[in-house]
Amino acid sequence: VIRPRAYLAVCGPGDATPAELGAAEEVGREIADSNAVLVCGGLGGVMEAACRGAARGDGLTVGLLPGADRSAGNEYLTLAIPTGLGELRNGLIVRAVDAVIAIGGAYGTLSEVALALKTGTPVIGLDSFDLPDMQQARSPADAVGLALATVA
Amino acid sequence: VIRPRAYLAVCGPGDATPAELGAAEEVGREIADSNAVLVCGGLGGVMEAACRGAARGDGLTVGLLPGADRSAGNEYLTLAIPTGLGELRNGLIVRAVDAVIAIGGAYGTLSEVALALKTGTPVIGLDSFDLPDMQQARSPADAVGLALATVA
Amino acid sequence: VIRPRAYLAVCGPGDATPAELGAAEEVGREIADSNAVLVCGGLGGVMEAACRGAARGDGLTVGLLPGADRSAGNEYLTLAIPTGLGELRNGLIVRAVDAVIAIGGAYGTLSEVALALKTGTPVIGLDSFDLPDMQQARSPADAVGLALATVA
Amino acid sequence: VIRPRAYLAVCGPGDATPAELGAAEEVGREIADSNAVLVCGGLGGVMEAACRGAARGDGLTVGLLPGADRSAGNEYLTLAIPTGLGELRNGLIVRAVDAVIAIGGAYGTLSEVALALKTGTPVIGLDSFDLPDMQQARSPADAVGLALATVA
Repeated sequence: VIRPRAYLAVCGPGDATPAELGAAEEVGREIADSNAVLVCGGLGGVMEAACRGAARGDGLTVGLLPGADRSAGNEYLTLAIPTGLGELRNGLIVRAVDAVIAIGGAYGTLSEVALALKTGTPVIGLDSFDLPDMQQARSPADAVGLALATVA
Repeated sequence: VIRPRAYLAVCGPGDATPAELGAAEEVGREIADSNAVLVCGGLGGVMEAACRGAARGDGLTVGLLPGADRSAGNEYLTLAIPTGLGELRNGLIVRAVDAVIAIGGAYGTLSEVALALKTGTPVIGLDSFDLPDMQQARSPADAVGLALATVA
Repeated sequence: VIRPRAYLAVCGPGDATPAELGAAEEVGREIADSNAVLVCGGLGGVMEAACRGAARGDGLTVGLLPGADRSAGNEYLTLAIPTGLGELRNGLIVRAVDAVIAIGGAYGTLSEVALALKTGTPVIGLDSFDLPDMQQARSPADAVGLALATVA
Repeated sequence: VIRPRAYLAVCGPGDATPAELGAAEEVGREIADSNAVLVCGGLGGVMEAACRGAARGDGLTVGLLPGADRSAGNEYLTLAIPTGLGELRNGLIVRAVDAVIAIGGAYGTLSEVALALKTGTPVIGLDSFDLPDMQQARSPADAVGLALATVA
């Protein structure tokens, strides 16, 4: 069994701007190219774009879905896992990963960032929030590089 | 059975300043005097001060504890409920209440504020975060008044 | 603040027989008369009957509801707490209490009994399952007595 | 992205008999050979044996761990996902899958079987419990065949 190099969350809004979607797709591709696993909330917007990028790099993607219905997951998920926890699944995403990459400024994303900072999981921001304990990335590749550097 | 008028969360740091503790105690007292139930994370700092205030007003207080040990709850809790969920119990607090009163600026508090805003639960800030969809209170009494106004 | 003597769960089907409902109501009354808190799933059937009994004894009742809607709770609850966890709230009920009283033989009840036995929480059966580590009660009063004896 | 044919849980004790371990390993191998994903609690005993079998068939295995530490997962997991939910993660396993294969008779397994039956997820028993709504398998291959038949 080959172990993944790292588990990285990509958190961002389901309703995203073109710039956010583009950044998310690049982040996903970089994660796949780094042999890391992408974990996300499994739905659309930033989550789907990141998974699409990872899928193009033949990466492994896991969606922890809020509802109980697997079919709500986006089409680029390797594994679509219904949790039935609603927004409490945000906390599961944080627990599942070694570091969080946050894109954009939605409240769901903020809850993930805050839980990660509370529990000591590194958070990298990419055009997202600017909180004292976050690291700020200059580009998608930089975001993944900073995230992997926290894991090594 | 007499139904509580409202369920209000008081969220704030376990390690708090004297000003935060004083505000929390007043908020707790106002909640009790309004015949509302105080829900919190059940530990020390702002949580304990709010419960102390509520207890002085003979109010009902519920602590949703992160661990599995009831004895970790502060001494002013009417009900100490171990959840064993760790920081994911923050999401349970938000689900349990009609409105959230946030005091101070800790990451755990931020996670509760963000989850509440994400799910449409009203959030009142008292010397806390300043996010677009929050209401800002001028005093402890104002905070409880604004919270109750969202419930009516 | 007066601490409850014990936290006891009453678990049983939402769709119950008259005998189960009668037993549940007596159990609830005995819990209230013992100054213990009754914790349950907050819905109808055995849960509602137990709460009705406790309410007649002026006892405190807590319903941990599966959905996100407080109004789904039965009318005899002192505190109706929506969790939004669906059937996973069964595990929260088990964590919240010092002992479990199981009535009847539904699958939801069985999940609570099994989780309790797995985690070392005492389980008292009243015309319910007969598993090796459970105690069997002869009557509602006996069930509450056995449950309280495990707490002392 | 190639979607898994099905998600199947293998539930059984961490402290298992040689016969249970042998059955679990065969079940895991059959799951992998069927292009299904094996989901389990991620620890030792039946969980580890099933993952070992799946790994020998180059199958994908997911462990939903009770604690917050990824390293507690067994060495045959493709993905080791810490949940920090303790025994409540048993409910997550049930939600994640299309059908449950139960091996042996431990209380944790019983909680998974009961939650699955409560929520309408098919349960196949292999020398395990005998509850009315379960199907009983005659062999590991039969167990996986029956589980896949419920998904089609």
